[in-house]
Amino acid sequence: MENFITQNPTKLIFGKGSAARISGEIPADARVMVLYGGGSIKKNGAYDDVMAALRGRRVTEFGGIEPNPKYETLMKAVEAARAAETDYLLAVGGGSVIDGTKFIACALRYDGANPWDFLVDPALLKPVRPLPLAAVLTLPATGSEMNNGGVISRYSTGEKLAFHHNEVFPRFSVLDPCYCFTLPDRQVANGIVDTFAHVLEQYLTYPSQAMVQDRFAEGILLTLKEIAQPLMADHTDYDLMSNFMIAATMGLNGYIAWGVPQDWATHMIGHELTALHGLDHGVTLAIVYPALMQVLREPKAEKLLQYGERVWNIDAGSREARIDATIARTRAFFESLGIRTRLSDYGIGVSTIDAIVKRFSDRGWKLGERADVGPDTVRLILEAAM
Amino acid sequence: MENFITQNPTKLIFGKGSAARISGEIPADARVMVLYGGGSIKKNGAYDDVMAALRGRRVTEFGGIEPNPKYETLMKAVEAARAAETDYLLAVGGGSVIDGTKFIACALRYDGANPWDFLVDPALLKPVRPLPLAAVLTLPATGSEMNNGGVISRYSTGEKLAFHHNEVFPRFSVLDPCYCFTLPDRQVANGIVDTFAHVLEQYLTYPSQAMVQDRFAEGILLTLKEIAQPLMADHTDYDLMSNFMIAATMGLNGYIAWGVPQDWATHMIGHELTALHGLDHGVTLAIVYPALMQVLREPKAEKLLQYGERVWNIDAGSREARIDATIARTRAFFESLGIRTRLSDYGIGVSTIDAIVKRFSDRGWKLGERADVGPDTVRLILEAAM
Repeated sequence: MENFITQNPTKLIFGKGSAARISGEIPADARVMVLYGGGSIKKNGAYDDVMAALRGRRVTEFGGIEPNPKYETLMKAVEAARAAETDYLLAVGGGSVIDGTKFIACALRYDGANPWDFLVDPALLKPVRPLPLAAVLTLPATGSEMNNGGVISRYSTGEKLAFHHNEVFPRFSVLDPCYCFTLPDRQVANGIVDTFAHVLEQYLTYPSQAMVQDRFAEGILLTLKEIAQPLMADHTDYDLMSNFMIAATMGLNGYIAWGVPQDWATHMIGHELTALHGLDHGVTLAIVYPALMQVLREPKAEKLLQYGERVWNIDAGSREARIDATIARTRAFFESLGIRTRLSDYGIGVSTIDAIVKRFSDRGWKLGERADVGPDTVRLILEAAM
Repeated sequence: MENFITQNPTKLIFGKGSAARISGEIPADARVMVLYGGGSIKKNGAYDDVMAALRGRRVTEFGGIEPNPKYETLMKAVEAARAAETDYLLAVGGGSVIDGTKFIACALRYDGANPWDFLVDPALLKPVRPLPLAAVLTLPATGSEMNNGGVISRYSTGEKLAFHHNEVFPRFSVLDPCYCFTLPDRQVANGIVDTFAHVLEQYLTYPSQAMVQDRFAEGILLTLKEIAQPLMADHTDYDLMSNFMIAATMGLNGYIAWGVPQDWATHMIGHELTALHGLDHGVTLAIVYPALMQVLREPKAEKLLQYGERVWNIDAGSREARIDATIARTRAFFESLGIRTRLSDYGIGVSTIDAIVKRFSDRGWKLGERADVGPDTVRLILEAAM
């Protein structure tokens, strides 16, 4: 196990009716901005519950934060928050709204002219003291409700960049499974894939003698495997949705990452597919991961075998046959959620591969747990995903 | 899953050499008291590392906090801390030192004449604002390094009482496996049993549809099962000791408890055995748990079967045979660590059973996840432990 330092200060408030507790968590004199997306929170009950809890407070609203939240939109929110002298942000939505709110919290306190700069250069973000923020989660997937990261897209340049700051952990997050009952199939499927991929990024690397963390990672994967079909069949099952929410939060709140190597190549490649083609984040992960497993089957062999045995019960056959079966089972799991796993399924071809490889080449990025996945390997992965 | 609210603000600093980071975590102007036990920290390197990290600071020391930390001793520390105008406590040791330090942090800020009162009546503790504290862990077992609880004994009356306060989470805890290399066999064995029992208290109840929490609990139990023998054979194996530390911390830092029923009857009964006979805490758990499983095999049947199957691979035979095998396997695990699991092994007989039953009867306590384990059932459990 590697040395590590970790801390997660987010307070979780879980269960039916939990939004009523918001009023006790936000200072009485705060000027609150409630941020949300396309308006689904007005159908699933979250908006009404939040506004009821904030009755009598100084509240403004900013709606319209889109999936893969866009810099251009978020900068409008920054202006509106400044105008309202906002000093507390409450994100009500999924990972995009929460990520966007984290960005806004930083941008409001950033002295530079162009907040995009701190996404490109994290050193600029470090001295920033973001506004306090909290979240009401309505879509389990990204884990943003209990972590310190976010991902922002820029429409004008087709870029998508991640950032981290230890003061953007939500002060509290309300997790009420009932708000997720009205989610469309596509969002539930994407959320399952996203959570599954988050866990793999922190697990499917090389053995690091982190036995508890491995078991926890496998425990989340097993849970996703068990709940996927019944949850897809019925989004209104409280227990299933509860387990999905816990799996998504635990999948990226830092706990399974204690002292282990991490990969994140699939996410980085997937971000480019979203930036260039607007594919859903979950879809990009379902496309890239099986291909990445195939190309990196040797450096990841030991963990692929462990993952296959403990999650998919693949314990017979030759080493190569077991790895093949494990990759096939992973692809079949994603497909079972109604997500196609080939670039060609989305009409994406060689020109996109060339563009993505060029981007990684231009940036000089080396991806993966050994920082050895360069442009040539990215090309192999994308070709294997055709 | 039940509704829950949870937050764990402790910063963990893990790995070889981590004590050097203490100086950056404690305010430069703090008057620090370093608290420890019988002096083992002067042999395992922790004392030297801590003092080196605090060089130039205003530091006082208080040694001699014993296992099952005693009120009488801790009140001497309170006096010494007052005299030194201490405003930051640093516990260096195992759970007893950390628990004791948590108590001291509260007692220093308690207005009443007799701090024992707030152990008897938690309402008295609630308004107290404890001194900040931190820990350097040298014995994995209690999880006190990352939770908000403690257990204090009173020599004069033979009592042992637990307390909780959300402001006694250590500000940070240093976990350096190297400090544990010199632990005696007995303490490693006790620590493994204590961790195992902590997990069972939060898991071996009734099914609550908490799938991730169950998998995490099983993951810790499986890890303990796997590391126990090699770790007992070699306490200086860095990887094994690392996994033990993580298992112990994760076993009682609140994460596997999210929204699940909890038992704690074994601990409550065990505390009485320690209070009356001075048995090691881990030993009392190894005595009580198999007996409790036997007596409560029906109300706990579903989770006993799940635990047997997922942790001990017991999946064949009749329901009753599987439960029998699961209990036998648990007892054998404790015995494999060199811990005898019968009251008679310690010369304890009927008079002690009578005394403990009378105590529970006098207090009117009902134990267990259904709050239905009264004095009569406690008697059955202790008789089954003979």
